[in-house]
Amino acid sequence: MAPNEVYQFSIISALMSGLASASSSMPVSTLLTHGNFGLGTFEQMDGEMIVLDSEAYQFHADGSTHLASGAQLVPFAMVADFQPALARPIAVASKGSLLAELEQAFPSARNAFVLFRLVGRFGRVKVRAIHKQAYEGQPLAELAEGQAVREFVRVEGTVVGIRSPGWSEGVSVVGVHAHFIDVGRRFGGHILELEGDGEVGFEGVVAERFHVEVPGSTEFGERELDLDRAAIQKAEG
Amino acid sequence: MAPNEVYQFSIISALMSGLASASSSMPVSTLLTHGNFGLGTFEQMDGEMIVLDSEAYQFHADGSTHLASGAQLVPFAMVADFQPALARPIAVASKGSLLAELEQAFPSARNAFVLFRLVGRFGRVKVRAIHKQAYEGQPLAELAEGQAVREFVRVEGTVVGIRSPGWSEGVSVVGVHAHFIDVGRRFGGHILELEGDGEVGFEGVVAERFHVEVPGSTEFGERELDLDRAAIQKAEG
Repeated sequence: MAPNEVYQFSIISALMSGLASASSSMPVSTLLTHGNFGLGTFEQMDGEMIVLDSEAYQFHADGSTHLASGAQLVPFAMVADFQPALARPIAVASKGSLLAELEQAFPSARNAFVLFRLVGRFGRVKVRAIHKQAYEGQPLAELAEGQAVREFVRVEGTVVGIRSPGWSEGVSVVGVHAHFIDVGRRFGGHILELEGDGEVGFEGVVAERFHVEVPGSTEFGERELDLDRAAIQKAEG
Repeated sequence: MAPNEVYQFSIISALMSGLASASSSMPVSTLLTHGNFGLGTFEQMDGEMIVLDSEAYQFHADGSTHLASGAQLVPFAMVADFQPALARPIAVASKGSLLAELEQAFPSARNAFVLFRLVGRFGRVKVRAIHKQAYEGQPLAELAEGQAVREFVRVEGTVVGIRSPGWSEGVSVVGVHAHFIDVGRRFGGHILELEGDGEVGFEGVVAERFHVEVPGSTEFGERELDLDRAAIQKAEG
Protein backbone atom coordinates (compact mmCIF):
# COMPACT_ATOMS: atom_id res chain seq x y z
CA MET A 1 0.00 0.00 0.00
CA ALA A 2 1.00 3.60 -0.51
CA PRO A 3 2.33 5.51 2.51
CA ASN A 4 -0.14 6.51 5.22
CA GLU A 5 -3.01 4.35 4.02
CA VAL A 6 -4.60 2.71 7.03
CA TYR A 7 -5.05 -1.05 6.76
CA GLN A 8 -7.31 -2.60 9.36
CA PHE A 9 -7.95 -6.28 9.90
CA SER A 10 -11.40 -7.09 11.31
CA ILE A 11 -13.50 -4.52 13.18
CA ILE A 12 -13.44 -3.43 16.79
CA SER A 13 -17.01 -4.53 17.48
CA ALA A 14 -16.05 -8.09 16.51
CA LEU A 15 -13.19 -7.94 19.02
CA MET A 16 -15.57 -6.51 21.63
CA SER A 17 -17.83 -9.52 21.08
CA GLY A 18 -14.90 -11.81 21.87
CA LEU A 19 -14.07 -12.89 18.35
CA ALA A 20 -10.33 -13.59 18.57
CA SER A 21 -9.86 -17.20 17.50
CA ALA A 22 -7.27 -18.51 15.05
CA SER A 23 -9.86 -18.94 12.31
CA SER A 24 -10.75 -15.24 12.45
CA SER A 25 -7.12 -14.07 12.61
CA MET A 26 -4.28 -13.17 10.23
CA PRO A 27 -0.57 -14.01 10.62
CA VAL A 28 1.76 -11.24 11.78
CA SER A 29 3.82 -11.80 8.61
CA THR A 30 0.80 -10.93 6.43
CA LEU A 31 -0.15 -7.97 8.59
CA LEU A 32 3.35 -6.51 8.23
CA THR A 33 3.00 -6.48 4.43
CA HIS A 34 0.34 -3.80 4.99
CA GLY A 35 2.30 -1.50 7.29
CA ASN A 36 5.38 -0.94 9.42
CA PHE A 37 3.61 0.99 12.19
CA GLY A 38 0.47 0.33 14.18
CA LEU A 39 -1.33 -1.41 17.01
CA GLY A 40 -3.54 -4.36 17.72
CA THR A 41 -3.83 -7.53 19.74
CA PHE A 42 -3.09 -11.25 19.43
CA GLU A 43 -5.06 -14.48 19.13
CA GLN A 44 -7.29 -15.01 22.17
CA MET A 45 -6.56 -11.35 22.98
CA ASP A 46 -3.33 -12.38 24.62
CA GLY A 47 -1.99 -8.95 25.57
CA GLU A 48 -1.34 -5.90 23.43
CA MET A 49 0.50 -5.35 20.15
CA ILE A 50 2.61 -2.48 18.94
CA VAL A 51 4.11 -2.40 15.45
CA LEU A 52 7.17 -0.21 15.12
CA ASP A 53 9.82 -0.20 12.39
CA SER A 54 8.23 -3.31 10.84
CA GLU A 55 8.47 -5.33 14.04
CA ALA A 56 5.51 -6.45 16.13
CA TYR A 57 5.91 -6.67 19.90
CA GLN A 58 3.63 -8.46 22.30
CA PHE A 59 3.01 -7.12 25.81
CA HIS A 60 1.65 -9.85 28.05
CA ALA A 61 -0.46 -9.23 31.13
CA ASP A 62 2.35 -10.72 33.27
CA GLY A 63 4.53 -7.76 32.27
CA SER A 64 6.76 -9.65 29.86
CA THR A 65 7.42 -8.39 26.35
CA HIS A 66 8.27 -10.46 23.30
CA LEU A 67 9.14 -9.81 19.71
CA ALA A 68 6.31 -11.54 17.88
CA SER A 69 7.02 -14.19 15.28
CA GLY A 70 5.60 -13.97 11.79
CA ALA A 71 3.45 -17.03 12.49
CA GLN A 72 1.61 -15.51 15.45
CA LEU A 73 -2.01 -14.70 14.76
CA VAL A 74 -3.79 -11.37 14.96
CA PRO A 75 -7.59 -11.01 15.31
CA PHE A 76 -7.54 -7.18 15.14
CA ALA A 77 -4.94 -4.61 14.12
CA MET A 78 -4.52 -1.27 12.39
CA VAL A 79 -1.28 -0.61 10.54
CA ALA A 80 0.16 1.79 7.95
CA ASP A 81 3.43 2.64 6.29
CA PHE A 82 3.94 5.75 8.34
CA GLN A 83 5.51 8.74 6.61
CA PRO A 84 4.86 11.78 8.77
CA ALA A 85 4.07 15.10 7.11
CA LEU A 86 4.70 17.16 10.22
CA ALA A 87 7.32 16.96 12.96
CA ARG A 88 7.71 19.28 15.92
CA PRO A 89 8.36 19.18 19.63
CA ILE A 90 5.26 19.26 21.84
CA ALA A 91 4.49 19.22 25.53
CA VAL A 92 2.05 16.43 26.47
CA ALA A 93 -0.10 17.39 29.46
CA SER A 94 -2.20 14.22 29.43
CA LYS A 95 -3.58 11.51 27.17
CA GLY A 96 -6.73 13.60 26.86
CA SER A 97 -4.79 16.64 25.67
CA LEU A 98 -3.44 14.68 22.70
CA LEU A 99 -6.75 15.01 20.88
CA ALA A 100 -6.61 18.81 21.04
CA GLU A 101 -2.94 18.65 20.04
CA LEU A 102 -3.85 16.61 16.94
CA GLU A 103 -6.71 18.95 16.06
CA GLN A 104 -4.34 21.89 16.27
CA ALA A 105 -1.74 20.15 14.13
CA PHE A 106 -4.32 19.06 11.54
CA PRO A 107 -7.28 21.45 11.77
CA SER A 108 -9.15 20.07 8.73
CA ALA A 109 -8.97 16.39 9.46
CA ARG A 110 -12.05 15.84 11.60
CA ASN A 111 -13.36 13.15 9.25
CA ALA A 112 -10.08 11.46 8.36
CA PHE A 113 -7.68 9.26 10.30
CA VAL A 114 -4.55 10.74 11.88
CA LEU A 115 -1.41 8.68 12.47
CA PHE A 116 1.07 9.94 15.03
CA ARG A 117 4.20 9.00 16.89
CA LEU A 118 5.71 10.53 20.01
CA VAL A 119 9.35 9.86 20.83
CA GLY A 120 11.17 11.01 23.94
CA ARG A 121 11.13 11.02 27.69
CA PHE A 122 7.80 10.86 29.50
CA GLY A 123 7.14 11.85 33.09
CA ARG A 124 4.58 9.12 33.60
CA VAL A 125 3.07 6.40 31.46
CA LYS A 126 0.27 4.17 32.73
CA VAL A 127 -0.31 1.17 30.51
CA ARG A 128 -2.48 -1.90 30.58
CA ALA A 129 -2.25 -5.32 29.03
CA ILE A 130 -5.25 -7.59 29.01
CA HIS A 131 -5.14 -11.20 30.08
CA LYS A 132 -5.61 -13.88 27.45
CA GLN A 133 -9.19 -15.06 27.10
CA ALA A 134 -10.09 -17.60 29.80
CA TYR A 135 -12.63 -19.15 27.44
CA GLU A 136 -13.30 -18.88 23.72
CA GLY A 137 -15.34 -15.82 22.91
CA GLN A 138 -14.77 -14.03 26.22
CA PRO A 139 -15.79 -10.42 25.49
CA LEU A 140 -13.22 -7.65 25.55
CA ALA A 141 -15.21 -5.59 28.06
CA GLU A 142 -14.94 -8.49 30.53
CA LEU A 143 -11.20 -8.84 29.88
CA ALA A 144 -10.68 -5.10 30.29
CA GLU A 145 -12.21 -5.34 33.78
CA GLY A 146 -9.37 -7.61 34.88
CA GLN A 147 -6.59 -5.94 32.89
CA ALA A 148 -3.06 -5.75 34.32
CA VAL A 149 -2.07 -2.12 34.88
CA ARG A 150 1.50 -0.86 35.24
CA GLU A 151 2.84 2.62 35.73
CA PHE A 152 6.28 3.89 34.77
CA VAL A 153 7.85 7.22 35.69
CA ARG A 154 10.54 9.14 33.85
CA VAL A 155 10.73 6.65 31.04
CA GLU A 156 12.03 6.96 27.50
CA GLY A 157 10.12 5.39 24.70
CA THR A 158 7.76 5.67 21.76
CA VAL A 159 4.01 6.15 21.49
CA VAL A 160 2.28 4.78 18.41
CA GLY A 161 -1.13 6.35 17.99
CA ILE A 162 -4.12 6.47 15.65
CA ARG A 163 -6.92 9.01 15.92
CA SER A 164 -10.02 7.58 14.21
CA PRO A 165 -12.94 9.73 13.02
CA GLY A 166 -16.47 9.63 14.42
CA TRP A 167 -17.85 7.82 11.39
CA SER A 168 -15.69 4.77 12.20
CA GLU A 169 -17.83 3.98 15.26
CA GLY A 170 -18.08 0.22 15.75
CA VAL A 171 -15.32 -0.27 13.17
CA SER A 172 -12.27 1.42 14.70
CA VAL A 173 -11.66 3.03 18.10
CA VAL A 174 -13.14 6.53 17.71
CA GLY A 175 -10.75 9.13 19.12
CA VAL A 176 -7.19 8.47 20.24
CA HIS A 177 -5.96 4.89 20.52
CA ALA A 178 -2.30 4.64 21.50
CA HIS A 179 0.21 2.05 22.66
CA PHE A 180 3.62 2.60 24.26
CA ILE A 181 6.96 0.80 24.11
CA ASP A 182 10.05 1.77 26.07
CA VAL A 183 13.32 2.53 24.33
CA GLY A 184 14.84 -0.79 25.46
CA ARG A 185 11.85 -2.76 24.13
CA ARG A 186 11.34 -4.29 27.58
CA PHE A 187 7.86 -3.06 28.49
CA GLY A 188 4.80 -1.24 27.25
CA GLY A 189 1.11 -1.65 26.53
CA HIS A 190 -2.14 0.13 25.79
CA ILE A 191 -1.87 3.69 27.15
CA LEU A 192 -4.35 4.63 29.86
CA GLU A 193 -2.58 7.77 31.07
CA LEU A 194 0.34 9.79 29.80
CA GLU A 195 2.26 12.79 31.06
CA GLY A 196 5.14 14.60 29.45
CA ASP A 197 8.41 15.56 31.09
CA GLY A 198 9.30 18.62 29.08
CA GLU A 199 8.83 18.24 25.34
CA VAL A 200 8.79 15.12 23.23
CA GLY A 201 9.10 14.73 19.47
CA PHE A 202 5.74 14.65 17.71
CA GLU A 203 5.30 13.38 14.17
CA GLY A 204 1.97 13.04 12.44
CA VAL A 205 0.08 12.77 9.19
CA VAL A 206 -3.52 12.72 7.97
CA ALA A 207 -4.69 9.44 6.40
CA GLU A 208 -7.47 9.80 3.84
CA ARG A 209 -7.50 6.19 2.74
CA PHE A 210 -8.83 3.46 4.97
CA HIS A 211 -8.90 -0.22 4.09
CA VAL A 212 -10.84 -2.79 6.07
CA GLU A 213 -10.47 -6.51 5.56
CA VAL A 214 -12.88 -8.69 7.48
CA PRO A 215 -12.20 -12.33 8.39
CA GLY A 216 -13.66 -14.83 5.95
CA SER A 217 -14.53 -17.23 8.78
CA THR A 218 -18.05 -18.53 9.34
CA GLU A 219 -17.98 -17.39 12.98
CA PHE A 220 -17.24 -13.83 11.88
CA GLY A 221 -19.79 -13.99 9.08
CA GLU A 222 -22.58 -15.18 11.36
CA ARG A 223 -21.87 -13.10 14.48
CA GLU A 224 -24.43 -10.49 15.46
CA LEU A 225 -22.36 -7.45 16.38
CA ASP A 226 -23.23 -4.67 18.78
CA LEU A 227 -21.85 -1.29 17.75
CA ASP A 228 -21.85 -0.02 21.32
CA ARG A 229 -19.75 3.11 21.32
CA ALA A 230 -19.75 3.59 25.09
CA ALA A 231 -18.53 0.05 25.72
CA ILE A 232 -15.80 0.39 23.08
CA GLN A 233 -14.63 3.67 24.61
CA LYS A 234 -14.53 2.11 28.05
CA ALA A 235 -12.49 -0.89 26.89
CA GLU A 236 -10.26 0.70 24.27
CA GLY A 237 -10.48 4.50 24.36
CA MET B 1 -7.67 -3.47 -7.07
CA ALA B 2 -8.27 -7.17 -6.95
CA PRO B 3 -11.71 -8.48 -8.00
CA ASN B 4 -14.64 -7.85 -5.65
CA GLU B 5 -12.87 -5.36 -3.41
CA VAL B 6 -15.28 -2.53 -2.67
CA TYR B 7 -13.88 0.94 -3.29
CA GLN B 8 -15.92 3.77 -1.85
CA PHE B 9 -15.33 7.48 -2.34
CA SER B 10 -16.49 9.66 0.57
CA ILE B 11 -19.06 8.49 3.09
CA ILE B 12 -22.86 8.52 2.97
CA SER B 13 -23.22 10.80 5.99
CA ALA B 14 -21.19 13.46 4.16
CA LEU B 15 -23.59 13.18 1.22
CA MET B 16 -26.55 13.34 3.61
CA SER B 17 -25.15 16.60 4.96
CA GLY B 18 -25.15 18.02 1.44
CA LEU B 19 -21.46 17.75 0.71
CA ALA B 20 -21.41 17.32 -3.07
CA SER B 21 -19.28 20.16 -4.44
CA ALA B 22 -16.51 19.87 -7.03
CA SER B 23 -13.81 20.25 -4.37
CA SER B 24 -15.09 17.20 -2.49
CA SER B 25 -15.52 15.08 -5.64
CA MET B 26 -13.49 12.73 -7.82
CA PRO B 27 -13.54 12.48 -11.65
CA VAL B 28 -15.46 9.58 -13.20
CA SER B 29 -12.23 8.56 -14.99
CA THR B 30 -10.47 8.06 -11.63
CA LEU B 31 -13.45 6.28 -10.12
CA LEU B 32 -13.49 3.79 -12.99
CA THR B 33 -9.87 2.80 -12.25
CA HIS B 34 -11.28 1.32 -9.01
CA GLY B 35 -14.12 -0.73 -10.47
CA ASN B 36 -16.28 -1.54 -13.49
CA PHE B 37 -19.54 -1.97 -11.53
CA GLY B 38 -21.27 0.14 -8.94
CA LEU B 39 -23.47 3.06 -8.03
CA GLY B 40 -23.30 6.62 -6.82
CA THR B 41 -24.26 10.16 -7.68
CA PHE B 42 -22.81 13.24 -9.40
CA GLU B 43 -21.58 16.70 -8.42
CA GLN B 44 -24.35 18.73 -6.75
CA MET B 45 -26.22 15.40 -6.50
CA ASP B 46 -27.42 15.82 -10.05
CA GLY B 47 -29.34 12.59 -10.44
CA GLU B 48 -28.23 8.98 -9.98
CA MET B 49 -25.24 7.00 -11.22
CA ILE B 50 -24.93 3.40 -12.29
CA VAL B 51 -21.59 1.88 -13.33
CA LEU B 52 -21.91 -1.13 -15.58
CA ASP B 53 -19.26 -2.71 -17.83
CA SER B 54 -16.85 0.15 -17.03
CA GLU B 55 -19.29 2.83 -18.16
CA ALA B 56 -20.98 5.34 -15.88
CA TYR B 57 -24.50 6.48 -16.72
CA GLN B 58 -26.30 9.49 -15.31
CA PHE B 59 -30.05 9.45 -14.72
CA HIS B 60 -31.37 12.99 -14.42
CA ALA B 61 -34.53 13.95 -12.59
CA ASP B 62 -36.09 15.06 -15.91
CA GLY B 63 -35.99 11.44 -17.03
CA SER B 64 -33.08 11.80 -19.45
CA THR B 65 -30.10 9.44 -19.35
CA HIS B 66 -26.55 10.20 -20.41
CA LEU B 67 -23.31 8.31 -20.66
CA ALA B 68 -21.10 10.22 -18.25
CA SER B 69 -17.81 11.67 -19.43
CA GLY B 70 -14.57 10.91 -17.63
CA ALA B 71 -14.33 14.54 -16.53
CA GLN B 72 -17.65 14.56 -14.67
CA LEU B 73 -17.31 14.72 -10.92
CA VAL B 74 -18.53 12.28 -8.29
CA PRO B 75 -19.03 13.21 -4.60
CA PHE B 76 -20.03 9.67 -3.55
CA ALA B 77 -19.81 6.25 -5.18
CA MET B 78 -19.16 2.59 -4.46
CA VAL B 79 -17.54 0.47 -7.15
CA ALA B 80 -15.80 -2.87 -7.58
CA ASP B 81 -14.41 -5.11 -10.28
CA PHE B 82 -17.31 -7.51 -10.08
CA GLN B 83 -16.54 -11.19 -10.56
CA PRO B 84 -19.53 -13.15 -9.31
CA ALA B 85 -18.97 -16.39 -7.42
CA LEU B 86 -22.54 -17.58 -7.77
CA ALA B 87 -25.04 -17.40 -10.64
CA ARG B 88 -28.58 -18.76 -10.66
CA PRO B 89 -32.08 -17.83 -11.72
CA ILE B 90 -34.26 -16.35 -8.97
CA ALA B 91 -37.77 -15.02 -8.63
CA VAL B 92 -37.86 -11.49 -7.19
CA ALA B 93 -41.02 -10.85 -5.19
CA SER B 94 -40.05 -7.34 -4.07
CA LYS B 95 -37.10 -5.12 -3.28
CA GLY B 96 -37.49 -6.16 0.36
CA SER B 97 -37.25 -9.84 -0.52
CA LEU B 98 -33.81 -9.30 -2.05
CA LEU B 99 -32.24 -9.11 1.40
CA ALA B 100 -33.55 -12.57 2.31
CA GLU B 101 -32.48 -13.82 -1.11
CA LEU B 102 -28.93 -12.57 -0.50
CA GLU B 103 -28.84 -14.09 2.99
CA GLN B 104 -29.90 -17.41 1.55
CA ALA B 105 -27.29 -17.23 -1.19
CA PHE B 106 -24.53 -16.19 1.24
CA PRO B 107 -25.52 -17.39 4.71
CA SER B 108 -22.23 -16.44 6.42
CA ALA B 109 -21.81 -12.93 5.13
CA ARG B 110 -23.73 -10.91 7.67
CA ASN B 111 -20.69 -8.71 8.40
CA ALA B 112 -19.28 -8.44 4.90
CA PHE B 113 -20.44 -6.63 1.77
CA VAL B 114 -22.33 -8.47 -0.95
CA LEU B 115 -22.22 -7.38 -4.59
CA PHE B 116 -24.99 -8.55 -6.87
CA ARG B 117 -26.43 -8.11 -10.32
CA LEU B 118 -29.83 -9.07 -11.67
CA VAL B 119 -30.37 -9.33 -15.40
CA GLY B 120 -33.65 -10.04 -17.13
CA ARG B 121 -37.22 -8.96 -17.51
CA PHE B 122 -38.96 -7.32 -14.56
CA GLY B 123 -42.69 -6.98 -14.03
CA ARG B 124 -42.38 -3.57 -12.42
CA VAL B 125 -39.54 -1.25 -11.52
CA LYS B 126 -40.12 1.98 -9.63
CA VAL B 127 -37.09 4.27 -9.69
CA ARG B 128 -36.28 7.75 -8.52
CA ALA B 129 -33.74 10.33 -9.54
CA ILE B 130 -33.09 13.29 -7.30
CA HIS B 131 -33.00 16.85 -8.58
CA LYS B 132 -29.70 18.68 -8.60
CA GLN B 133 -29.06 20.74 -5.48
CA ALA B 134 -30.89 24.08 -5.64
CA TYR B 135 -28.20 25.58 -3.41
CA GLU B 136 -24.75 24.50 -2.30
CA GLY B 137 -24.92 22.11 0.61
CA GLN B 138 -28.62 21.24 0.21
CA PRO B 139 -29.04 18.06 2.30
CA LEU B 140 -29.90 14.77 0.63
CA ALA B 141 -32.95 14.24 2.85
CA GLU B 142 -34.42 17.49 1.50
CA LEU B 143 -33.64 16.48 -2.10
CA ALA B 144 -35.15 13.04 -1.56
CA GLU B 145 -38.43 14.71 -0.56
CA GLY B 146 -38.74 16.23 -4.03
CA GLN B 147 -37.31 13.31 -5.98
CA ALA B 148 -38.66 12.46 -9.44
CA VAL B 149 -40.29 9.02 -9.41
CA ARG B 150 -40.96 6.89 -12.49
CA GLU B 151 -42.45 3.47 -12.83
CA PHE B 152 -41.87 1.02 -15.64
CA VAL B 153 -43.73 -2.21 -16.30
CA ARG B 154 -42.53 -5.30 -18.13
CA VAL B 155 -39.10 -3.91 -18.72
CA GLU B 156 -35.80 -5.60 -19.50
CA GLY B 157 -32.68 -4.39 -17.81
CA THR B 158 -30.00 -4.77 -15.18
CA VAL B 159 -29.96 -4.15 -11.43
CA VAL B 160 -26.63 -3.25 -9.85
CA GLY B 161 -26.76 -3.76 -6.11
CA ILE B 162 -24.62 -3.63 -2.99
CA ARG B 163 -25.67 -5.03 0.38
CA SER B 164 -23.67 -3.27 3.11
CA PRO B 165 -23.24 -4.68 6.64
CA GLY B 166 -24.59 -3.11 9.82
CA TRP B 167 -21.18 -1.90 10.92
CA SER B 168 -21.00 0.44 7.92
CA GLU B 169 -23.70 2.67 9.41
CA GLY B 170 -23.03 6.31 8.53
CA VAL B 171 -20.39 5.18 6.04
CA SER B 172 -22.31 3.17 3.45
CA VAL B 173 -26.01 2.47 2.97
CA VAL B 174 -26.74 -0.37 5.42
CA GLY B 175 -28.84 -3.05 3.74
CA VAL B 176 -29.64 -3.23 0.03
CA HIS B 177 -28.81 -0.26 -2.20
CA ALA B 178 -29.60 -0.86 -5.85
CA HIS B 179 -29.87 1.05 -9.11
CA PHE B 180 -31.52 -0.03 -12.37
CA ILE B 181 -30.77 0.57 -16.04
CA ASP B 182 -32.89 -0.69 -18.92
CA VAL B 183 -31.42 -2.86 -21.65
CA GLY B 184 -31.45 0.03 -24.15
CA ARG B 185 -29.63 2.35 -21.72
CA ARG B 186 -32.45 4.86 -22.04
CA PHE B 187 -33.77 5.05 -18.47
CA GLY B 188 -33.21 3.98 -14.91
CA GLY B 189 -32.42 5.27 -11.44
CA HIS B 190 -32.32 4.41 -7.75
CA ILE B 191 -34.68 1.48 -7.13
CA LEU B 192 -37.60 2.15 -4.79
CA GLU B 193 -39.67 -0.90 -5.71
CA LEU B 194 -39.02 -3.98 -7.78
CA GLU B 195 -41.13 -6.93 -8.91
CA GLY B 196 -40.07 -9.88 -10.96
CA ASP B 197 -41.87 -11.31 -13.98
CA GLY B 198 -40.87 -14.93 -13.75
CA GLU B 199 -37.22 -15.50 -13.00
CA VAL B 200 -34.25 -13.25 -13.64
CA GLY B 201 -30.55 -14.04 -13.64
CA PHE B 202 -28.91 -13.48 -10.28
CA GLU B 203 -25.14 -13.18 -9.85
CA GLY B 204 -23.45 -12.36 -6.57
CA VAL B 205 -20.31 -12.46 -4.51
CA VAL B 206 -19.19 -11.69 -0.96
CA ALA B 207 -16.71 -8.81 -0.61
CA GLU B 208 -14.43 -9.01 2.42
CA ARG B 209 -12.28 -6.02 1.53
CA PHE B 210 -13.62 -2.51 1.79
CA HIS B 211 -11.66 0.61 0.90
CA VAL B 212 -12.80 4.09 1.80
CA GLU B 213 -11.17 7.22 0.46
CA VAL B 214 -12.38 10.48 1.93
CA PRO B 215 -12.12 13.84 0.15
CA GLY B 216 -9.07 15.87 1.08
CA SER B 217 -11.05 19.13 0.93
CA THR B 218 -11.24 21.53 3.85
CA GLU B 219 -15.05 21.51 3.72
CA PHE B 220 -15.06 17.73 4.16
CA GLY B 221 -12.38 17.86 6.82
CA GLU B 222 -14.24 20.43 8.90
CA ARG B 223 -17.83 19.21 8.49
CA GLU B 224 -19.61 17.90 11.56
CA LEU B 225 -21.38 14.76 10.37
CA ASP B 226 -24.52 13.18 11.72
CA LEU B 227 -24.56 9.41 11.49
CA ASP B 228 -28.35 9.27 11.46
CA ARG B 229 -29.26 5.78 10.35
CA ALA B 230 -32.99 6.42 10.08
CA ALA B 231 -32.47 9.45 7.86
CA ILE B 232 -30.02 7.57 5.63
CA GLN B 233 -32.45 4.66 5.28
CA LYS B 234 -35.26 7.02 4.36
CA ALA B 235 -33.21 8.80 1.70
CA GLU B 236 -31.16 5.93 0.32
CA GLY B 237 -32.43 2.60 1.58
